[in-house]
Amino acid sequence: MKILILNGPNLNMLGSREPEIYGEQGIQELNKRLKLEGDKLGVEVESFQSNYEGELIEWIQRAGDDYDGLIINPGALTHYSIALRDAIASIELQCIEVHLSNIYQRESFRHKSVIAPVVMGQISGFGFDSYILGLRALVEQNQSKL
Amino acid sequence: MKILILNGPNLNMLGSREPEIYGEQGIQELNKRLKLEGDKLGVEVESFQSNYEGELIEWIQRAGDDYDGLIINPGALTHYSIALRDAIASIELQCIEVHLSNIYQRESFRHKSVIAPVVMGQISGFGFDSYILGLRALVEQNQSKL
Amino acid sequence: MKILILNGPNLNMLGSREPEIYGEQGIQELNKRLKLEGDKLGVEVESFQSNYEGELIEWIQRAGDDYDGLIINPGALTHYSIALRDAIASIELQCIEVHLSNIYQRESFRHKSVIAPVVMGQISGFGFDSYILGLRALVEQNQSKL
Amino acid sequence: MKILILNGPNLNMLGSREPEIYGEQGIQELNKRLKLEGDKLGVEVESFQSNYEGELIEWIQRAGDDYDGLIINPGALTHYSIALRDAIASIELQCIEVHLSNIYQRESFRHKSVIAPVVMGQISGFGFDSYILGLRALVEQNQSKL
Amino acid sequence: MKILILNGPNLNMLGSREPEIYGEQGIQELNKRLKLEGDKLGVEVESFQSNYEGELIEWIQRAGDDYDGLIINPGALTHYSIALRDAIASIELQCIEVHLSNIYQRESFRHKSVIAPVVMGQISGFGFDSYILGLRALVEQNQSKL
Amino acid sequence: MKILILNGPNLNMLGSREPEIYGEQGIQELNKRLKLEGDKLGVEVESFQSNYEGELIEWIQRAGDDYDGLIINPGALTHYSIALRDAIASIELQCIEVHLSNIYQRESFRHKSVIAPVVMGQISGFGFDSYILGLRALVEQNQSKL
Amino acid sequence: MKILILNGPNLNMLGSREPEIYGEQGIQELNKRLKLEGDKLGVEVESFQSNYEGELIEWIQRAGDDYDGLIINPGALTHYSIALRDAIASIELQCIEVHLSNIYQRESFRHKSVIAPVVMGQISGFGFDSYILGLRALVEQNQSKL
Amino acid sequence: MKILILNGPNLNMLGSREPEIYGEQGIQELNKRLKLEGDKLGVEVESFQSNYEGELIEWIQRAGDDYDGLIINPGALTHYSIALRDAIASIELQCIEVHLSNIYQRESFRHKSVIAPVVMGQISGFGFDSYILGLRALVEQNQSKL
Amino acid sequence: MKILILNGPNLNMLGSREPEIYGEQGIQELNKRLKLEGDKLGVEVESFQSNYEGELIEWIQRAGDDYDGLIINPGALTHYSIALRDAIASIELQCIEVHLSNIYQRESFRHKSVIAPVVMGQISGFGFDSYILGLRALVEQNQSKL
Amino acid sequence: MKILILNGPNLNMLGSREPEIYGEQGIQELNKRLKLEGDKLGVEVESFQSNYEGELIEWIQRAGDDYDGLIINPGALTHYSIALRDAIASIELQCIEVHLSNIYQRESFRHKSVIAPVVMGQISGFGFDSYILGLRALVEQNQSKL
Amino acid sequence: MKILILNGPNLNMLGSREPEIYGEQGIQELNKRLKLEGDKLGVEVESFQSNYEGELIEWIQRAGDDYDGLIINPGALTHYSIALRDAIASIELQCIEVHLSNIYQRESFRHKSVIAPVVMGQISGFGFDSYILGLRALVEQNQSKL
Amino acid sequence: MKILILNGPNLNMLGSREPEIYGEQGIQELNKRLKLEGDKLGVEVESFQSNYEGELIEWIQRAGDDYDGLIINPGALTHYSIALRDAIASIELQCIEVHLSNIYQRESFRHKSVIAPVVMGQISGFGFDSYILGLRALVEQNQSKL
Repeated sequence: MKILILNGPNLNMLGSREPEIYGEQGIQELNKRLKLEGDKLGVEVESFQSNYEGELIEWIQRAGDDYDGLIINPGALTHYSIALRDAIASIELQCIEVHLSNIYQRESFRHKSVIAPVVMGQISGFGFDSYILGLRALVEQNQSKL
Repeated sequence: MKILILNGPNLNMLGSREPEIYGEQGIQELNKRLKLEGDKLGVEVESFQSNYEGELIEWIQRAGDDYDGLIINPGALTHYSIALRDAIASIELQCIEVHLSNIYQRESFRHKSVIAPVVMGQISGFGFDSYILGLRALVEQNQSKL
Repeated sequence: MKILILNGPNLNMLGSREPEIYGEQGIQELNKRLKLEGDKLGVEVESFQSNYEGELIEWIQRAGDDYDGLIINPGALTHYSIALRDAIASIELQCIEVHLSNIYQRESFRHKSVIAPVVMGQISGFGFDSYILGLRALVEQNQSKL
Repeated sequence: MKILILNGPNLNMLGSREPEIYGEQGIQELNKRLKLEGDKLGVEVESFQSNYEGELIEWIQRAGDDYDGLIINPGALTHYSIALRDAIASIELQCIEVHLSNIYQRESFRHKSVIAPVVMGQISGFGFDSYILGLRALVEQNQSKL
Repeated sequence: MKILILNGPNLNMLGSREPEIYGEQGIQELNKRLKLEGDKLGVEVESFQSNYEGELIEWIQRAGDDYDGLIINPGALTHYSIALRDAIASIELQCIEVHLSNIYQRESFRHKSVIAPVVMGQISGFGFDSYILGLRALVEQNQSKL
Repeated sequence: MKILILNGPNLNMLGSREPEIYGEQGIQELNKRLKLEGDKLGVEVESFQSNYEGELIEWIQRAGDDYDGLIINPGALTHYSIALRDAIASIELQCIEVHLSNIYQRESFRHKSVIAPVVMGQISGFGFDSYILGLRALVEQNQSKL
Repeated sequence: MKILILNGPNLNMLGSREPEIYGEQGIQELNKRLKLEGDKLGVEVESFQSNYEGELIEWIQRAGDDYDGLIINPGALTHYSIALRDAIASIELQCIEVHLSNIYQRESFRHKSVIAPVVMGQISGFGFDSYILGLRALVEQNQSKL
Repeated sequence: MKILILNGPNLNMLGSREPEIYGEQGIQELNKRLKLEGDKLGVEVESFQSNYEGELIEWIQRAGDDYDGLIINPGALTHYSIALRDAIASIELQCIEVHLSNIYQRESFRHKSVIAPVVMGQISGFGFDSYILGLRALVEQNQSKL
Repeated sequence: MKILILNGPNLNMLGSREPEIYGEQGIQELNKRLKLEGDKLGVEVESFQSNYEGELIEWIQRAGDDYDGLIINPGALTHYSIALRDAIASIELQCIEVHLSNIYQRESFRHKSVIAPVVMGQISGFGFDSYILGLRALVEQNQSKL
Repeated sequence: MKILILNGPNLNMLGSREPEIYGEQGIQELNKRLKLEGDKLGVEVESFQSNYEGELIEWIQRAGDDYDGLIINPGALTHYSIALRDAIASIELQCIEVHLSNIYQRESFRHKSVIAPVVMGQISGFGFDSYILGLRALVEQNQSKL
Repeated sequence: MKILILNGPNLNMLGSREPEIYGEQGIQELNKRLKLEGDKLGVEVESFQSNYEGELIEWIQRAGDDYDGLIINPGALTHYSIALRDAIASIELQCIEVHLSNIYQRESFRHKSVIAPVVMGQISGFGFDSYILGLRALVEQNQSKL
Repeated sequence: MKILILNGPNLNMLGSREPEIYGEQGIQELNKRLKLEGDKLGVEVESFQSNYEGELIEWIQRAGDDYDGLIINPGALTHYSIALRDAIASIELQCIEVHLSNIYQRESFRHKSVIAPVVMGQISGFGFDSYILGLRALVEQNQSKL
């Protein structure tokens, strides 16, 4: 089983960017934790970050063939990228939307996700654990024993 | 460690109510799964359901003294019970909001949670697994090793 | 055939409360008229009033097993109780929403019913006759001869 | 006693138009049922349908002199014809608004009736029975014995 | 000089309809007063009333050839008939919108005129005098000496 | 009979300000025309302009004692000065609101008058003639023979 | 194959009405071009214009029996005639909505079509060519070779 | 003279809940201060708190018979409980709405009170003094000598 | 201790203006009552009324140096004068907003106060007693013994 | 004559993506049909697809020099890419907006096109034929003989 | 060359008012800096502050004759004074709107300027430098060499 | 000191694109003027333009390390790119938002900047001078002597 983790704009700045919101660890630490967790769960995990809506769309399109599940933190694109939404809707893969912070505690324009209606579920507010929980949920979904 | 699970209005109807949305298993099955998972994680789990906003508020108020964490599925109260929100905000306990279905795929009035801004995080769309993931997140938070 | 009549908050005040809107007869008179009408139609009628959203929900939930139809005047809950709506949606029973006054002639917040989309039909503006008409409609529905 | 039944635009298509919403019987069947019911109630019933807002207005204006009550299903005009509303408000006759389908279960623009604030009451969702119930309510109103 | 006076839906009910808003005199009295005033001003006045949007549109279209000015009280069509608006915009004639009552003191949906942006000016609130003032304004406009 | 004419902010700029909207004649010409018309109608006319909301309010308050009618062009205050509205509502005098331009042809924020609901009527779009028509309407109102 | 072309209010004024928006050719020229194009495509074309919503509705209702396709330019009714919409929805015929001008470049109230959701497709902005393109699309649809 | 003091959801948490907003003293201290103040004013004061909307409604209904005035802090129900509003409107008693904090300085959903339109007056922002001032106002009202 | 009482536009009309809303006593009576109450409380009270937003702003600015507290009834400026709001926010003085009538029972534009978020508290609906209660609250605040 | 066809995000997925909405043929088939049609019409057709807003903008900018017309299906960018809109507005070329599906039958956020106000016309709902019709319209526009 | 600097309500409080937003220097320091900068640029600078909308309007009206440019910080009037806007629009002078703070970082009602659409440009967020930059821009505009 | 100038989508079209709005000089002229001004001020200036949101984000992210200040004209991304906003918020650099045209005089969707709340200040409406003024403001900020 092979899972794709996609991170959207500015998530490469994790650790340096507004640490009071996003924590102090960088995206390398996140990826390491996800690899470790993947090993424990017996699944292959690949991570990818892009600041380009177009590049994220193409990763999603290819994911349909190469992966068995998708975890995406669309960053700010969460709130307006209907193109990203359409990409996710166009593939058969199960997809989970995750957020580091609780987006419902922030500016009102962050309360609306245009992505949420086309994913299986959404997890927000647990820092790196949002990804870990998402990974487990995906695996569980396939193995029926979370 | 002791975790309180609260279920709001109509969740006692789980299994019989609109199974195409909520699945076919009842609240007893849910509670059993949560007990089992609690045993695995080494935490005590207590579950409670009420169709009364007032009774849920009082369980939340008491939870501050008797429990180490709170997982709540407020049911329909999610969308209008500011009183429930104030109850959660009035206690020190970490609280996680969970939903069986992906509320962002349903009627637009279900997209808004008045509870979300006062909880640690929100998990929606994974059926019973929403609760299980929430339980793990709470435990992790205390033990720092999800 | 057995029909449940449910009355929401403040309908116990009928007769004393704002008689220019709701008329001068109390809930006992209403219940008497409904009984009489039931006798004529050959159906058993039971009435219940509560000022508690939670109690109404539980009556609705039980109605699924014990009754053959439901007539509800949700009172002010009409306009915000999504929990009541979910309770009605969770049972198989045919349900009719009734109002004493024409809610479309009153304050604009009373024009919106969150209940209406989950009932068979709505009757408003005929005083006690709203209930009587609802009762006949329910019976008719089963006997196909209004 | 003489009652006027008015049907607005497209109700002449009853039976052929979207039968999953409006049923399979045509307007002739409706009129026949209303005549029969009128006979039972001892009232004269006249039915009229028009696709013209102007013609409906003129029937309403004349109704003030020739009839003792009015039952109207304004069809799509329900949602925007302030001119129809003004016509109803300009006569002394008691008027009841009826709808075949439960308009609160359909597109959101059908939830708003500009007619409702000027009629005695509204009945929606019972198919042909909406008219029958309206007829009885009107008769009752005059004879005080529904 | 020849002026057309157009009255929209329900204005044929003047005198009988809601006299507390529209006064007690009928449309014949209005037309008589306008004739008299026209005589004084040395202009021919023709009045026409219709409850049909379509008929009003066709009178407006013809007015371009046969008249030197247009005074219109669109009645309830004021608030939604974009077709009427387009008809007025399609002719070269100067047009004045008049209302018997002060439409800004009534229901909020009457505060908005879709007609006003395509007429020379609007006069509302003076009963029959709204028409008389409009007539003078039109004549003045051509003779430059109000 | 004595009539007060009040002009609000920037109407002292008439003639120099945006002549394509307001015409090329100044406020002196307007006042001269109003005097002349007053002489013809046998009424005394006094005009006053202020750029201060407070000063306009005080003229209105005094008008209750010293005048028999009030014509006001509130200028931009039309759209937000609830204080001006309250002043007009606080006196017994009949008041007419006038506008040089057709305010419904301009920016949307000019379509809303907070003044209109408390005056007898509104005349807009006839340049100086808006005032002349208003003057006649006021006189007529007292002499019942426009 | 027989196609009905329906034109709504004011389209009889084509050529005389606001030529900077609608062009200088009249409805006769339009009908001639459509006839010619029909001849080329081997289909019979009939055109009809009405300023009456009611008359348009009845043409649409009859079209279900007599024609194989419908092209409609509802004029101003595009924006508010739910009755027209219901008429189109009530027939089996394929229908195409056309507009001479690009309605999205005009006043904001023209951006919304209540008709669009019940037609096969919409073509706007190409003057007479909007109709010609619509005609070809309809024919193509039946012959599968545009 | 006998006054009822009603406190809504979560006000039993006073002192422990968000002390930076609500102060550090509990509901017992509040009740003690109200008793003392009542003694000074020569009125009997009874206090009651509930987290149940239904229970509050029933206290209000009974208050009509047993008390001479009502002071209510509806807590979060202020913002959505139309049922509470209807209960207050259904009794003859004078009622004052009080709030500890200045609700207009908090989240925008707290700026709207559905209760305010049916009470005599509202006092907010003075902590416990809001109640004391309300008590005096009620007494004054009856004794005409604040 | 010295308290400034400020009254906004049209409050000089008290007693003559709309007595069914504001009562029949004038501003002199109000000031006399406030003086008397001040004597009782041992504080100096000075009252000032202006119809000019600018003059009120300057009194507020000076109040920072010369007074120990401010009670303001901003009249209609309550609803739009952000400049008044900024003046209050710019001084250190404690300020209380008072209203004679219950502004939440009147037109919806009176429900919004732009002043409320920058004052200590708001009292509305008690006639002159609104000021008296405000005076006591201010004094209490300084002497901690209401 | 040379025409550029631009396809926005996810249109490379045509055929595989949601075939019930977009049909089963891929973008190669679309391009082939457009080539064929171009040959018939005697114009050169070039097609280009990108998932990058930036790349589409640059193709549009270059189109000004290299092409004689532009047909664009902006995909999801239709609804929010003001940058794409500005690119189209910045070139002299005639541009037509096309959509495969009838966007007015889908989610409400798809009803709004930020592109439509800057193109010549819009065609939606005809599948591949939307492009073919657009191509013909463009050619016609240059040759004046559709 | 002669430039007028206008400051609106509460800007005389600069230095004492909310120094965390507006800085600690008073309006005298601002005027001194502007004089100095004027000397450097070879232009005469005159400054004026008023808390009266009316007085600001009259300064603007006179500015048309006596000055070559206008820099205005309308303070809170920025957000609602259409009268101020009209005054600026009525003169030929180039005008620049400046703000000390970044108004887009503050309360949402401060994000909207009714003044901005009638000035040449807007500069906000640079403290006193907002004025200095505005002064240079005005001078530059006349001398074409910033 | 080193300043980065970033230009968003379509600004490479300056000079050719809509010259009545943006002027006739191209981006090269702008960059030349900025270099010259930088030389005068003793700071290094680097300019960069991109039509890709992703590329702009990456330049902003790198700017944190390599530059001492940032001037950005986000073009159309001003109005929707929350990703750009987050990038600016994620770096420590002072940033100024500039616009060639006065965005408040254009379409209403251009009045809203999602960028403004995270920059130091905004300058709009001065053509190339908007950048020059921004450059000086940035330098001043560091040298405290504009």
